[in-house]
Amino acid sequence: MTLLQDIETPAAIVDAARMQRNIARMQDRMNALGVSFRPHVKTAKCIAVADRQRAAGANGITVSTLREAEEFFAAGYDDILYAVCITPHKLGRARQLRGQGCRLTILVDTVEIAQAIVETQSRSSDPFEVLIEVDTDGHRSGVGPEDARLIEIARVLHAGGVTLRGVLTHAGNSYELNDPEALQQLAEQERALIVRAAERLRAAGFSCPVVSVGSTPTALSARALDGVTEVRCGVYVFFDLFMTNVGVCALGDIALSVLTTVIGHQPDKGWIIVDAGWMAMSRDRGTARQAHDYGYGVVCDVEGEPLKDGFVMIAANQEHGILAAPTGSSASLGDRFPIGTRLRILPNHACATGAQFSEYHTAVDGAAVTWKRFNGW
Amino acid sequence: MTLLQDIETPAAIVDAARMQRNIARMQDRMNALGVSFRPHVKTAKCIAVADRQRAAGANGITVSTLREAEEFFAAGYDDILYAVCITPHKLGRARQLRGQGCRLTILVDTVEIAQAIVETQSRSSDPFEVLIEVDTDGHRSGVGPEDARLIEIARVLHAGGVTLRGVLTHAGNSYELNDPEALQQLAEQERALIVRAAERLRAAGFSCPVVSVGSTPTALSARALDGVTEVRCGVYVFFDLFMTNVGVCALGDIALSVLTTVIGHQPDKGWIIVDAGWMAMSRDRGTARQAHDYGYGVVCDVEGEPLKDGFVMIAANQEHGILAAPTGSSASLGDRFPIGTRLRILPNHACATGAQFSEYHTAVDGAAVTWKRFNGW
Repeated sequence: MTLLQDIETPAAIVDAARMQRNIARMQDRMNALGVSFRPHVKTAKCIAVADRQRAAGANGITVSTLREAEEFFAAGYDDILYAVCITPHKLGRARQLRGQGCRLTILVDTVEIAQAIVETQSRSSDPFEVLIEVDTDGHRSGVGPEDARLIEIARVLHAGGVTLRGVLTHAGNSYELNDPEALQQLAEQERALIVRAAERLRAAGFSCPVVSVGSTPTALSARALDGVTEVRCGVYVFFDLFMTNVGVCALGDIALSVLTTVIGHQPDKGWIIVDAGWMAMSRDRGTARQAHDYGYGVVCDVEGEPLKDGFVMIAANQEHGILAAPTGSSASLGDRFPIGTRLRILPNHACATGAQFSEYHTAVDGAAVTWKRFNGW
Repeated sequence: MTLLQDIETPAAIVDAARMQRNIARMQDRMNALGVSFRPHVKTAKCIAVADRQRAAGANGITVSTLREAEEFFAAGYDDILYAVCITPHKLGRARQLRGQGCRLTILVDTVEIAQAIVETQSRSSDPFEVLIEVDTDGHRSGVGPEDARLIEIARVLHAGGVTLRGVLTHAGNSYELNDPEALQQLAEQERALIVRAAERLRAAGFSCPVVSVGSTPTALSARALDGVTEVRCGVYVFFDLFMTNVGVCALGDIALSVLTTVIGHQPDKGWIIVDAGWMAMSRDRGTARQAHDYGYGVVCDVEGEPLKDGFVMIAANQEHGILAAPTGSSASLGDRFPIGTRLRILPNHACATGAQFSEYHTAVDGAAVTWKRFNGW
């Protein structure tokens, strides 16, 4: 891309063609499985990206912060699921969004917070819409599908006039797997246990129209989603090195990279020094505990093709990255990668690397474009 | 701090009293050692913080990006050292800053870039001011003190009419140490080798008024700095858990923390779930390879006092943190830390955690204040 020759480095680059392919792949899959798809916008935090997910057929969005909800609502997204359990002090902001016409759905997994929602509710004529988080793999949050508190939370919400919309789960343990069969099994466990939670609620007399599951690995591994109404996931839009190790994408699917410039060499050590350090890549070293450890990222040429001899960013300081090949030192590094050479680095974790930037550079119809992203809460 | 009850979480909190103590400690030390002090503002990226470093006696600032140079220059800082080796494509921006009246000093460690500086130079009447980076510990960048290229770079700069101001080194390997004697030895090595480089330049007929060293651990360990004119370092202003393991500060010196709210519990596992995940803490796990691994951070009460039973953030998702004590599960967690409880987390690495935020919350004269910080390049 000659377009990349003038960009200040380090910079976040989106390969729009790869991204579009990732979007189509996921949406086609969801269509085939007969479920609605609600992408998690926490990965890109970018209106232009979400616009493409919506154009492909997504229904609504998932967010990880109220800031995302506010930004996307201001951009015309009005069906928003805030998929982190709400805390009492955040209810005012949630209330405000609903008052402005945003159909914001919130999440709860404790009786105490259900009660706090009811208390806030009583001061308004517009009922909150709530999902109950269910724990289907011991990953983090949620009540167990057989837990008595599932019904208790529903009772508290219902008695308080809050609209219970259904149940939600996130099989986060899928990130620990790398075997297609194990991923299929976890996807089926996620499906079966959330459907069981929905059935318990219905048996107790509650309506449960929404049955929401999701993680990129399980969304790409599920063979059937009977009883599920909606899937959520986020990182698939860009993919990353972590996901290649999980086995749900290839290096050639990764749509986010960091453009960097060679600023020096240490030929005795086989090192190339570049102007992207951890401030650009993020400190994410998620692949360190996977089958293939990619350091701080895989080194590509300026077109985004991985270098043949396996260069990775082996170490990073705040504004310096050190690149090296597994074969070690090479006296010709300076000739091969003269100072000023531009390279691209594929990241371990797209959500973390994206967050280090306030915009993405991309090309649309052959023209350089920047897409804003936002951060913060 | 009752001031903290109304802040949205997660939020970055600066303990201004601790910060002031850290600033005074370093400045007093530099005064006693008879050297000028040029703080590295990459840690806080905050004018209000730099103002306090300047008020305490600092001379000029050090930056890691041209964005920092531009922001600080706009705020009235005109003596700025950009301490990352410049690349040819960044010379235009550097030139522009100098044209606006900023006394920007740039850094070089290769003959090629020295030549690029000379070429850019020839189009202007205002000579660049340049330091040569010297490698005193094999950490990353720089030419060796005995390397023939040291003199060659000086010749190229001098012949091209560029102002050679002197030499600079950064003993980054100090971050790997945790023994006071080893730190003193490395500080002495840093001093002796940079002084040697300066002497070689002088012997070759070049003036070398600036002899600049620095890293927080060596700055706090050096017993004498004969021949050194200036020290740079950054993280000392906040300190962090990494620096407690290096041994140059105590937990009670750490001036940056992340305020968070309890959003759930998993009593069977002994887990508290909070609304600060890695997006707030950063992905930095630097203490993982040190004597004491603090996970994603040390859990404190809302006043900033570490909890007695050693709670740390054992795991983090994007917007969720999991807190646990080494003693494991406790059935009373819900009573002790009810939902809505506010806690503070001391970070592994202040530079990385600060970068996740656009402002710091602090208290000045008993009133809540926010200090802006910036990110990006």
